[in-house]
Amino acid sequence: MDFRSDCPISSTLDIIGDRWTLVVLRSIMVGKRRYGELLEIPERISTNILADRLALLEREGLVRKSAYQERPKRYEYRLTEKGADLLPVIQALVEWGLKHIPCRWEPPMDYRTASPETFYPAEDD
Amino acid sequence: MDFRSDCPISSTLDIIGDRWTLVVLRSIMVGKRRYGELLEIPERISTNILADRLALLEREGLVRKSAYQERPKRYEYRLTEKGADLLPVIQALVEWGLKHIPCRWEPPMDYRTASPETFYPAEDD
Repeated sequence: MDFRSDCPISSTLDIIGDRWTLVVLRSIMVGKRRYGELLEIPERISTNILADRLALLEREGLVRKSAYQERPKRYEYRLTEKGADLLPVIQALVEWGLKHIPCRWEPPMDYRTASPETFYPAEDD
Repeated sequence: MDFRSDCPISSTLDIIGDRWTLVVLRSIMVGKRRYGELLEIPERISTNILADRLALLEREGLVRKSAYQERPKRYEYRLTEKGADLLPVIQALVEWGLKHIPCRWEPPMDYRTASPETFYPAEDD
């Protein structure tokens, strides 16, 4: 990864600074782990953007891919600790959106106040 | 603004979800208020991207533009309350970057723990 500077803000945005990456991560966080489930999110993501962002998330170590079926081989995606640690960024986006954009969905309070550890992978994951 | 869904996360990203907008906002937050100062940030932003993002920030009500010189007319940019309220998003990006990307600059602790109100415009601003 070629970072624009050594600033932790711009460097983090070099990885996840686009319209889709955190939307996909949000969806994996709430349990949509399979490609087909992720294609059905309400934001109407295209197949090529979804495939691109899943590859990015895996390459950057934010999710781990594992096969849940052998023939044909199919994968599901789980958060790593590094991916789960983006929860505070997502929560801050929630709070800003609820305050400044009218008529947004209100996520459950336990999601809004959860700690990243809640989403860390289990030992045997 | 055409939002992809009513999710507060994706809607906020519809506004500020790109590599540059929060970098420009960060720079205004630390006192770089003029076009020429913003052009000199270490991330080497191009003039057209800077002009585009400043127009976006103003259009979305995240900054307010005011003339500081008449002939030729020159402007400076100040945070609005709506813009300052993005501080927790930026702070969360800082913490993630410091934890997960080696050798980043460490911003002063008072910036890392400041509340958005610190950056609200003064009454007569």
